[in-house]
Amino acid sequence: MSQGVEWALHCTVTLAGQPEGATLLGRDLALYHGVSEAYLLKHLQALVRAGLLESLPGRAGGYRLARPAAEISVLDVVTAIEGVGPSFRCSEIRRRQPGATTEAAAYRRPCPINATMLAAESAWRDVLSGRTIADLLLEIHRRADFDSLVRGAEWLSTRTRN
Amino acid sequence: MSQGVEWALHCTVTLAGQPEGATLLGRDLALYHGVSEAYLLKHLQALVRAGLLESLPGRAGGYRLARPAAEISVLDVVTAIEGVGPSFRCSEIRRRQPGATTEAAAYRRPCPINATMLAAESAWRDVLSGRTIADLLLEIHRRADFDSLVRGAEWLSTRTRN
Repeated sequence: MSQGVEWALHCTVTLAGQPEGATLLGRDLALYHGVSEAYLLKHLQALVRAGLLESLPGRAGGYRLARPAAEISVLDVVTAIEGVGPSFRCSEIRRRQPGATTEAAAYRRPCPINATMLAAESAWRDVLSGRTIADLLLEIHRRADFDSLVRGAEWLSTRTRN
Repeated sequence: MSQGVEWALHCTVTLAGQPEGATLLGRDLALYHGVSEAYLLKHLQALVRAGLLESLPGRAGGYRLARPAAEISVLDVVTAIEGVGPSFRCSEIRRRQPGATTEAAAYRRPCPINATMLAAESAWRDVLSGRTIADLLLEIHRRADFDSLVRGAEWLSTRTRN
């Protein structure tokens, strides 16, 4: 899994903590998280394409959430960056075996190996779709060092654009 | 996830269906599954290193399970090929933020973003550790086209080495 997932989750949570309607520049999101601006912009654009963020042009431009944080699941962000396809890809090896038949009907039921791998991915997705960006923001605030939280919020407040 | 996972699972299940103590050559496992012998040997060696297969030298040589199929989980095979580490890697972005403190104690509790990603991977692993190679063999036999199964078994029986 690419590091973009970590960056995208942190940025989405950070934007969720901004005043309603306010934006942050990609440059400031990169500075805030201490990551490469060029790479981050690529991931932010992926979040925009997925309909999770809005990108506003002009002087008051920047990024903000496209819908409430409680309506963006962690899975939404992960799939925006990594794609929706399964990580395990079945190439239907069973049809290449010496005994294989050419009758498609014989393979209507999925290969149990594929079914098992997909069941595991489904369990993975269930956990991520069951947590929202709002959940993460709340949890981060509850766990954070209070002074660090205040200093971070102060830094962000000087960059927020309305 | 690499295609090696699919190949390794199919080979392990195929070996589980062999007479006790019998072996199959890597070349025949590659032929049977219609895959590259050179790549397959690399994956078979990973399964040997993980203690899931035994590799016997000499004229009666080849591969066989190192322990009963009911004691090899799907997760055992997947981690032998893909490694045991988590797919999501937290780089502790939170410690690079402007408000961050240098006191390690402030970060004793894991970042909720990391905790969520690891919970999802744990759910994924639970599914794979709950299914064994014996389960897969049984399920494949129950679902397979009977004639294909017989032809495949006949082909394998001419290659089995005792």
